[in-house]
Formats: sequence, structure tokens, C-alpha cells
Amino acid sequence: MSEAVSATKMTRAEYEQRVPALRTALLRAQDELAERDFPVVVTLDGPDLIGGDDVFEVLHEWFDARFLRSDAFGPPSDAEKRFPFLWRYWNVIPPRGTILLLRRSWTASAIVRRTFGELNDAELDLRIEHLQELERQLVAAGALLVKFWLHVDQAVLQSRIEKARKRNRYAFRDEEWAIAKCYDEGREVARRVLAATDQGWAPWHVLRGEDRRWRNLEVGTILARALQARLAQTQPTQPGFRTVSRAPSAPRLAQVDPRAPELECADYDRQRDELQERFTQLTRKAEHRGLGAVLVIEGWDAAGKGGAIRRVTHAMDAQMYKIFPIRAPDEREKSRPYMWRFWRRLPPMGRVSIFDRSWYGRVLVERVEGFAAEPEWRAAYAEIEDFERQLVEHGYAVYKAFLHVSEEEQLRRFEERRDTPYKRHKLTDEDWRNRDKRGPYEAAIDEMLARTSGAVPWHVVPADDKRTARLAVLRGVVDVLERALARQRES
Amino acid sequence: MSEAVSATKMTRAEYEQRVPALRTALLRAQDELAERDFPVVVTLDGPDLIGGDDVFEVLHEWFDARFLRSDAFGPPSDAEKRFPFLWRYWNVIPPRGTILLLRRSWTASAIVRRTFGELNDAELDLRIEHLQELERQLVAAGALLVKFWLHVDQAVLQSRIEKARKRNRYAFRDEEWAIAKCYDEGREVARRVLAATDQGWAPWHVLRGEDRRWRNLEVGTILARALQARLAQTQPTQPGFRTVSRAPSAPRLAQVDPRAPELECADYDRQRDELQERFTQLTRKAEHRGLGAVLVIEGWDAAGKGGAIRRVTHAMDAQMYKIFPIRAPDEREKSRPYMWRFWRRLPPMGRVSIFDRSWYGRVLVERVEGFAAEPEWRAAYAEIEDFERQLVEHGYAVYKAFLHVSEEEQLRRFEERRDTPYKRHKLTDEDWRNRDKRGPYEAAIDEMLARTSGAVPWHVVPADDKRTARLAVLRGVVDVLERALARQRES
Repeated sequence: MSEAVSATKMTRAEYEQRVPALRTALLRAQDELAERDFPVVVTLDGPDLIGGDDVFEVLHEWFDARFLRSDAFGPPSDAEKRFPFLWRYWNVIPPRGTILLLRRSWTASAIVRRTFGELNDAELDLRIEHLQELERQLVAAGALLVKFWLHVDQAVLQSRIEKARKRNRYAFRDEEWAIAKCYDEGREVARRVLAATDQGWAPWHVLRGEDRRWRNLEVGTILARALQARLAQTQPTQPGFRTVSRAPSAPRLAQVDPRAPELECADYDRQRDELQERFTQLTRKAEHRGLGAVLVIEGWDAAGKGGAIRRVTHAMDAQMYKIFPIRAPDEREKSRPYMWRFWRRLPPMGRVSIFDRSWYGRVLVERVEGFAAEPEWRAAYAEIEDFERQLVEHGYAVYKAFLHVSEEEQLRRFEERRDTPYKRHKLTDEDWRNRDKRGPYEAAIDEMLARTSGAVPWHVVPADDKRTARLAVLRGVVDVLERALARQRES
Repeated sequence: MSEAVSATKMTRAEYEQRVPALRTALLRAQDELAERDFPVVVTLDGPDLIGGDDVFEVLHEWFDARFLRSDAFGPPSDAEKRFPFLWRYWNVIPPRGTILLLRRSWTASAIVRRTFGELNDAELDLRIEHLQELERQLVAAGALLVKFWLHVDQAVLQSRIEKARKRNRYAFRDEEWAIAKCYDEGREVARRVLAATDQGWAPWHVLRGEDRRWRNLEVGTILARALQARLAQTQPTQPGFRTVSRAPSAPRLAQVDPRAPELECADYDRQRDELQERFTQLTRKAEHRGLGAVLVIEGWDAAGKGGAIRRVTHAMDAQMYKIFPIRAPDEREKSRPYMWRFWRRLPPMGRVSIFDRSWYGRVLVERVEGFAAEPEWRAAYAEIEDFERQLVEHGYAVYKAFLHVSEEEQLRRFEERRDTPYKRHKLTDEDWRNRDKRGPYEAAIDEMLARTSGAVPWHVVPADDKRTARLAVLRGVVDVLERALARQRES
């Protein structure tokens, strides 16, 4: 990041002489991009409020607007506040081949919220880490990220606002007035955020906005050059990723005997009824208090994930929850960073999302079967930790279980599925193949348990006895919900 | 629709004997469906509140839940209330090859809202018409729609609720208590709604829920049969559609001279500034009052749609609006009823959606180029009227303009595009081909104007002079916003 480049006064004649070639270059790049396998994300932030909107508009004119995606964000709405703060940005992440133009991105949001005192310093630090990780994931998935910081001095900003207000040409929100007023505080926060997010693979372009023509042409020129450079690359440099160390206290598969003592049927019925009653009450309380929950059920093939989930959902009415069975990503999902499809499936506060398999596919099946390259699944430990930390910080109750069955019990269930007509569809050739890779899977599971226990603890559930497993999951979800409700009451 | 079939008591032994074959049949049908070009929508409504949730759960067990979509709706949330009432259901309409299971559909919602007095009789009638049209569009797009009405007597319902409450096994919302209390009123409303929506191509299946096993097996059996029957059809019977008569007062192209007098530059600048100032104020007022707007800009190729839209957006800040350039539908869109992609692009109240071309493509380019079959574009007049009526009833300000240019002026603009490097991308071979079909397009436009002026009037804007056209559009949007705000104040 360089200090703001000084604006040079540009004459109308020079502007009009230079614009046609620039437009042609931008259109050509946009056209070429359509056939390529990466997206482009352009962000426009900074205190030049009027100028930013102007650039936004001009870029709509210069690019072929029919193929341009764009979004502009103000203060989060009440509906948006029901999700973690990055949710609304994840929702608009574009597929390969397209350009997304973002007016006021996640950067502006972090700066404004801190400037207005809605975040303290420690919370801003957390938020910066999440921004860094978001931008890293975008670039790691191939995106070209071009970030503009549009700067004007306070005096210029205020006089422009006054002028606009007199002419009723730009009706500021309270928040925008406040930005102009808290200019100095905002400037300090911005320095911090910009310095922390100025990476080689996603640098800041800081521009002064005193001269409209110079600024617009400069934005267009930087953008055209960045596009051309990225289009010329076939192997873009990959951003590094953070390594999450193994937690010594995390559970290991070998410590858990899948053959837990079998439960008597009557015992099971009684305990299940009690836990379900308790869970019903808790979910209703959670709904009233606006507390959401995210439940992750992982496990070996035929470990009884579906059955365990049904014992949980049985205690909720249908509109409270959604079950998301996670399979291989489809084309739309492959065209975005890996975590995209999970962000989109988060529940609003007061609701429950249940994942039947989850983002852990990256470090399990995708790793073992080679669907993800090693840097991809290695990077996933930090991606997952960052994601789960955001869930917890937002206030969700989060539970994650791995249902552990022995090889013998798994074989018995495979054979039962094979021999029961209405269970046969659950058994595929892939299941048999996976079974032959028990060793590599065990290694992957143990590494997963060790490297992803930081934000949310893992529960390894003995699952050779279905009743025992179901009660353990019920007990687990009751427990996290109880604790999340208690935490909420304290704060 | 037959009167509720009486429940027969079914023994556990009979149930367990019959379930396996049923599950196998359902799974086979689901499997076969995956390769077919239509979706299945199953709705579960009716006063058997506990039973409905039970059926919902059981169907998750019987089908392969990994490939089942499901959704359950309660009272609309505040976020959902910002859209017309059918919006949340349109949002979940599934693509071909899949099954969507809906617990409490649009039917339950209409009945409950009327029973609680939130709708009067006339409003219920309107709502019923919208439900009929929604279901017709689903079936016309190929969907199999299977609707279950799950009935129990009030005494049974109340005793079940009491029992469930004592055990804390089912925590009712206030609304559900009220349903049990207002049972008789609800029953009358339900009769009306069910009678009106009981069509041959989407009949009601009314079942009594006194006996759980009988009911579940009956639902499964009806479903399996309906699936098998539909899978055996290659040419399902098409529902008829309503013909919208030509409005004698609607504008016709021939009445509008595209060569309006040219405007002096200075005059234009002054009027534009005034209108934009006015519009800025109005949109800010609309935002405060939660009034949304939908602007539709249609017109000949090169009629200046983009330029007119930019003059409107220039008066708004970036987060207020979204522009949707409408092109040929993509695969996801083709897999749903035609109106699906427009429903998804409606603005929440307080925001503005601008359509650069729109749902009128169905009766213009799709008709003239033969992309839509004649019954499809003929049915679209009623589909469009129904859609626009819902927009108006919900309180949106809606504006629609057709920009009219003469053949000579269009040729001049085509040539200019051809000769200007950065405009060339806007001109395609298709534009030249369309130009050769001026006659058929004129006929289609006139029929469109005549048959879609019922809910929202058309503005045919002379557009040979760009300045005149831009001012007319600005004046038009100022006008609809002003009137919608005045209407809102009255009510």
C-alpha cells in the first residue's frame, strides 16, 4: 500500500480523449474473462462517499453492464444482523468468469462499526483476522481481488456534502453524516485495517478523489492493468495459509471404543423421551431468545448419522430446523471458494441447521480420495477454524460429533443394507471402496480431530450400539444449547 | 376433492408388514425421477398439527433424505413480510428431477391469516386467485403437485395438544393454540379455500389423522401412486389458462410518434437536475417509510434503455437499488416456472429493483423467435397480470415503460455502435436479425400493451431523442413514487 497518490487536475479534453481506449480495454478484458475459470471482485471503499458512488456508476457504464454483477452495502439490516457479519458478503460471491463490483465492502463495514464504537479494539482485531481469511480464501480459489480506497480530505468531503445537500442531489443517511464528522477517528481505524489487509496478492490502491476525472480514469486504468495481468497468468501465485497446530487435548479415535455397552430397550426409551422433552423446551427458549444452533454430524459410512439426526429433529417442530445432507459440490459450488455453500446454509438466529456431513469433507473424503490438492486440504484447517470461530462469536450454539463404528459392525450394517430392498440405495460401490481405505481415513480423522478442536470441541461418539449413539448425540445437543443459553444470559 | 376418508385402525403388525414394499416403491420412483425433466411438490396442510409434522418426518425416512428438499413455514418473519406473501414459497421452488416436501404451504397461510382476521373476505378472494395461479404455473411448467389435507376433529386435536404439552414433547406456538381454539372458524375458511383450489390437475387428498399408522401409510401410498402415474406420462395434461382481454384504453405503438421534438441541451440539463433532485427526496422518503419500487424498462434494441436507467440511478445512492439486466434464462432458470427468476429479484420494501428488459420477454422475443410455444406465451398475459397485481397489492410503486424508436433512428444507432470500438459489443448479429422482424415485433408489442395494462399502466415513451426519453422516464418514476407514497399515507 502506498500513501494516497495525489490527484492531478485533468482537463475535460484529456479525459474525453483517453476514455475511449480505456473502455475498449475494459470491455476486451471482460469479454476474455467470460471464458476463464476465475472471478474478479472489485471493492470501492473509503471516505470519498460521493466519489465512490460516482466510480460505481461510471464502471457500470464502461463495462458491459449486462454481464456485470454489483452490490452496495450500507449498515446491516435487521434481517442481516441475524447472521454473522460476513454472511451477506459471502452470499454475493460471484462464480468464475464474472466481475463483481462491491460498493462498501467488508472493509468499510469493519471501519465504520469500530469508529462508531460498536466494536472495541479486541473485537476489531478479531474482525480483521476474519477479513484476512476471507480475502485469502477468495484469492486461493483463483479470484482476482482489486481493492480501491478512495480518499478525500475532511474539508473537501464536508463541502461536497453541503453542496449536495443544498441541491438535494445526494441524501445522506445519518451514518454518512457521522462518517464526515468522525473523520479523524475513522482515519486512524482505517489505517489499522488497511495496513493489516494489504497483502501482496490483494494490495490496496489508495487514490485521492479531489479531481473526478483523474480519479475515474485512474481507477479504470488500474483495473484494466490488473485484469490484463491476471488474464495473462495461467498459474497465479497462491497466497500462503496459516497452519493450525495439533491440540494435545483433542480426542483420538484409538481412545474411543466404538463397542460401548449395549442399552436395554426400556432404558433407552426412557432416557430418549427425557432428553427429547428437555431439547424441545430448550429449542423453544432458543427461538424466543433468538439463539441459533449449528449441528454437525460426521461419522463413518453406515455409522447411523441419519438415525441420530432424526432423534434430534423429532423433538422440534418442522419449521424450526433444516437438515443439509452434504454431497460432492455441484458446478455452482465448485465455482466458488470451498466454504461458500456452508455460509449460505447458516440458520438465522432462532433456527437450527443440521449438517449430515459437512465442511469436514475437505479434510476427509476430499483428502483421502485426492479430490482436493494437498495445499487445499491443508489450508482447510485454518479456514474451518476461522469459520467456526465466527459461528461462536456470533452466538450460535455449535455441536459437532463424529460417530465411530468398528470395522466389524460396519460390515454387518453394509450386509444388512445389501439384503434389505428399501435400504439398498444407501449402499454404493463407493462405500465398499472407502471401507478398504480404513487406514488412510483413520489418519485423516485423527488429524482432523487434532487440528479443528480449537473453536468448537469434537465429540467422538461410540456408535456400534445405535441406541447409545443416539442418546449421546441428544445429550450433546442438549448440553450445547443449555450452555449457549446460559452464556447469552450472562452477556 | 372427496370428503375426508375415514381412518381405519391399523395394527402395528399390518403396518410393519406393508411399509417395506411402500418404501421400496417410493425410493424407486425417486430414483427414476432424478433423470426426468419435471419436479415434484408435496404439500402437507390441515388441522392435524402433530400428525403433519409426523408425516413430514416419516417421509424423510422413507425417501432418500439426501436427495429430498424440504421446507416448513410458520407465520411470516419480519424479513419475509417485506415481500409479497408468495415470495417465500417461490424462493424454494425446486428444479426438475427433485422432490420438495412442504410442511404448511401457501394454503395453510391463507387459511390461518383469514381465520385470525388479518385478511377480510375480499382479500382472501384475491389471495385464492394468486394461489390458483401459482399452482397452475407449477403444473404448466411440468411439476407434479400432490396436496394433502390432514384432518382431525377438534376434540382429538385438543386432547393431543394437551397430552403433548404435559409431556413437553411438542411446544406449541401461540398461533397453533389459536388454531385449535378457532377450529370452527378455520374449518369454514378451509372449506372455501380447498374448494377453490381443488383442480383436476392438482386435486386435494383429504385424510383423517386419528390413526397414525393408517394415515402415514395412506399418504405414502397416494404419493407412490401419483409418482408412478406421472412418471409413466410423457405428455402430461396441461392446465388451461385464463385469457386476459385487450384493454380498449391501452396505448398502441401507432399512436406514439417516436420522433418527439428535440430538446435543447440547456433545457434538458435544468429539467433533469430538477427531476433527479425530486427523485432523490422521494426515494429517501420511500426508504424511511418502507416503500419498495419496481421499475421495468422495455424497448426496441438501441432504444436507450441503459442510458435512461443511468439517469434514474444517478439520483440514488448505490445501496438503494439493483439493476437486473434480463437475458435468456440459464439452466437453473429454465428448470423452473418462467416467473421464478423475477420473483427472486423483487426488492425488499424500501429498496428499488430496476429491470433492464423483464418478464415481458415471454410475449416479445420468446414469442417472435419461437423460444416459447404458443400456449406458453398466451398463458403469460394472465401470469404477468397476476404477478403485477401482487406487486401493487403488496404496496410497491411499479413503473413500466416501453422506449419507442423509429426504424431510421435505430439504424443510425446501430451504425454508430458498429463504428465506435467501445460500443461495438452492444451490437450483435441478433440485433440485425431482430430488425428484419419489425412487423412481427410491432404486432407482439401491441398485443402486449393491450393485454397487460390491467394491473399497471404502460408508458410508451418517444425515444428518437435520447434527452426527451430520459426526462420522460425520470418524470414517470417520480410520478409513480409520489402516488405510491400518497396512497400509503391514506391507508
